[in-house]
Amino acid sequence: MPFCWNEGYEVSLVDAMFSSFSAVCVTGLAAVEIGLVFNMTGQLVMLALIQIGGLGIMTATSLIFMALGKRFSLSDRLTMQESLNEDKLQGVVRMTRSATFLTFGCELAGAALLSIRFIPEFGWAKGIYYSVFHAVSAFCNAGFDVFGKGTNFMPYAQDPLVLITIMALIVVGGLGFLVVLESGRWAMHGFRGRLSLQAKVVLIATLFLIVAGTVIICVVEWNNPETLGIPSFSAGDKILNGAFQSVTTRTAGFSSFRQGGMHSVSALVTILLMFIGASPAGTGGGVKTTTCVVMLSLLVAIIRGREDVTILRRRINWQTVLRSIAIILLGMIFVGVMTFIVTTLESNRFDTSRILFEVVSAFGTVGLSQELTPLLCPASKVAIICCMYAGRVGLITVMTAISMRMAKGNGKIRYAEERIMVG
Amino acid sequence: MPFCWNEGYEVSLVDAMFSSFSAVCVTGLAAVEIGLVFNMTGQLVMLALIQIGGLGIMTATSLIFMALGKRFSLSDRLTMQESLNEDKLQGVVRMTRSATFLTFGCELAGAALLSIRFIPEFGWAKGIYYSVFHAVSAFCNAGFDVFGKGTNFMPYAQDPLVLITIMALIVVGGLGFLVVLESGRWAMHGFRGRLSLQAKVVLIATLFLIVAGTVIICVVEWNNPETLGIPSFSAGDKILNGAFQSVTTRTAGFSSFRQGGMHSVSALVTILLMFIGASPAGTGGGVKTTTCVVMLSLLVAIIRGREDVTILRRRINWQTVLRSIAIILLGMIFVGVMTFIVTTLESNRFDTSRILFEVVSAFGTVGLSQELTPLLCPASKVAIICCMYAGRVGLITVMTAISMRMAKGNGKIRYAEERIMVG
Ligand SMILES: [K+]
Ligand SMILES: [K+]
Repeated sequence: MPFCWNEGYEVSLVDAMFSSFSAVCVTGLAAVEIGLVFNMTGQLVMLALIQIGGLGIMTATSLIFMALGKRFSLSDRLTMQESLNEDKLQGVVRMTRSATFLTFGCELAGAALLSIRFIPEFGWAKGIYYSVFHAVSAFCNAGFDVFGKGTNFMPYAQDPLVLITIMALIVVGGLGFLVVLESGRWAMHGFRGRLSLQAKVVLIATLFLIVAGTVIICVVEWNNPETLGIPSFSAGDKILNGAFQSVTTRTAGFSSFRQGGMHSVSALVTILLMFIGASPAGTGGGVKTTTCVVMLSLLVAIIRGREDVTILRRRINWQTVLRSIAIILLGMIFVGVMTFIVTTLESNRFDTSRILFEVVSAFGTVGLSQELTPLLCPASKVAIICCMYAGRVGLITVMTAISMRMAKGNGKIRYAEERIMVG
Repeated sequence: MPFCWNEGYEVSLVDAMFSSFSAVCVTGLAAVEIGLVFNMTGQLVMLALIQIGGLGIMTATSLIFMALGKRFSLSDRLTMQESLNEDKLQGVVRMTRSATFLTFGCELAGAALLSIRFIPEFGWAKGIYYSVFHAVSAFCNAGFDVFGKGTNFMPYAQDPLVLITIMALIVVGGLGFLVVLESGRWAMHGFRGRLSLQAKVVLIATLFLIVAGTVIICVVEWNNPETLGIPSFSAGDKILNGAFQSVTTRTAGFSSFRQGGMHSVSALVTILLMFIGASPAGTGGGVKTTTCVVMLSLLVAIIRGREDVTILRRRINWQTVLRSIAIILLGMIFVGVMTFIVTTLESNRFDTSRILFEVVSAFGTVGLSQELTPLLCPASKVAIICCMYAGRVGLITVMTAISMRMAKGNGKIRYAEERIMVG
């Protein structure tokens, strides 16, 4: 897309590929400064890619979930599915319509709030454009900014209106469409009636991760002059920015302070939160909150010697449990291998923990960066592209697709059991 | 044990505790230089603790495995168990006797080979003592040295006799008593007849890990002047030391070059190998080779949509599979939490990847160190002690013991199944 660059800038093929992948995968890792290097055409192309990426993933995953739900509908009483009882096609149309309304509604509301700040600062045209772009970028958990100064949201670190609006958009986008709709209805009915397991787990896990992340980051960074310890910050500012960091890791990727300036403890917390990511059928990435909850419940069940894996007094079927294990283990192995490859390619130039940060950020389609991505060699950039792609498409999907072909012609042979000692 | 120190040295309570735990857990991480600070009484106490630790763990785990084997003996045809068919008590006595013979036999042979080098160098008394101490320390995968110069086996980096003897002792000690006995018989019968799944998996996995580790370390470190790239090293010396590093990580903890001088890629490989560790019912630590093989087989089964987890055309029962998952996931979570705690305690003084190295080394009871342990604050040393203890006793044992008490009075309630979206 050479017509997308501003004059005077040359963009290498790898960097151009990097940017497109980053946009479609709603990662937000940028090899070049978008607001500076891309002209208006380029930026609008990016905006369209982000919006399509976000909306597409949200509706597609919701549809798959609901389609699967059909098969299990006897044993299952998700409130959502009742709306599907009429007719398949009608249901799909209705759902896509609601998702689109929800998305544009949230983005419009967010843009309106942002414009209160941006129109006085940048004038009408630029102010409205900035409001819309960043509202879309936040709701779709893309994390791109077009301020063009390489500072992301750092200039707004003391502006609660901007930060809280962005945080709200990120969280709602990441909850997953079905959960948002269900909790919306539930709230309208005065918080009465039963929520589905999905909604309960997602809401509780999201709240827990945001609060825990905020507390740890605030405690660790309170007096760090490179992050929250800036002299002009009040206690309120510190908490606001700690919360922003906690929210943005899952998995928007905006930043209100320099990520490279973080204490190593906060960097570890950030890596963990980026790996966990958002919730299924939302616009966020990562291995997803519910996956982690299922895995922890499995561990509890094994340790307590239970036969069933249960969450909040509901049994989880084994297929889901196995899927969770596979997602998390494959994710860890993939991140480990990729960190290994990039460390090898960069041959001792950078610290391993910083490389891990970038790899997890790409895998979780987060886009936070400890200022490392632009410095990487082209081969490493390709590796990071693979991380984004795998993180977005899902490792299982990739691996299953590969093994589908290999499995052809393998009959069902059941082998004799033999014991093996482990641990 | 204040009577154990040499005059002129003061050992803090934490350091004394550290050394005892390190010996009993056959870790080999040393907060003080044993050959220098401990007098002969202290060193002999250490030697006894190591020998008891190594032999105890080997026989105890073998006995448990054989006791469990009794229950499954119909579906199982381990050659080993045939020897138990006579009488329970007699079997236990026989097994303990064979294990003791094997241990002392290997240690004696190793000491004899080492004495060829050590007696000329240190004279009769000290030479024999050094040969015995290091043979025991190697076979028990303890990794303590008493040279007292803080250089471990670095002075012998160009001495194939010493290094290969130590490597052989480490490998045989780590294979597990039952596997050694079975392969011994198999070799005596001219490599004919069927090996048990246990023996096959252990032998293949061990060979694979040693070779893969050697190749990667040699390739990465070939020209690094701090490790294999020492000008006086011939190609043979480089390969020898690469292989020594690969073997010692699982989980003896001797070193023939400075661990802190390694390239970050080799450090990553070392961390992985230390985490995997040796094989069950051996003297080594880590999560064990078989556990990892079972976990990988589970992943393959999930991806290929198979109902059974199979290894080498044998089915693995679900209890074993679940145990493997629990061991590996708990291990990863534990290592993560401990790294997090130590990073917090040291508050940005050391790099996270170096802390991870020490934590995994303690958890796997390896004892390799990037020269960090002596510099840690007392609270961090206690955390490292916890890692050694958890690594030796096994996290599952600890957690199950805790939950046993909690589970009292919980009836068997089966909850309704509810679906949840993951990934
Ligand atoms: K993102
Ligand atoms: K050791």
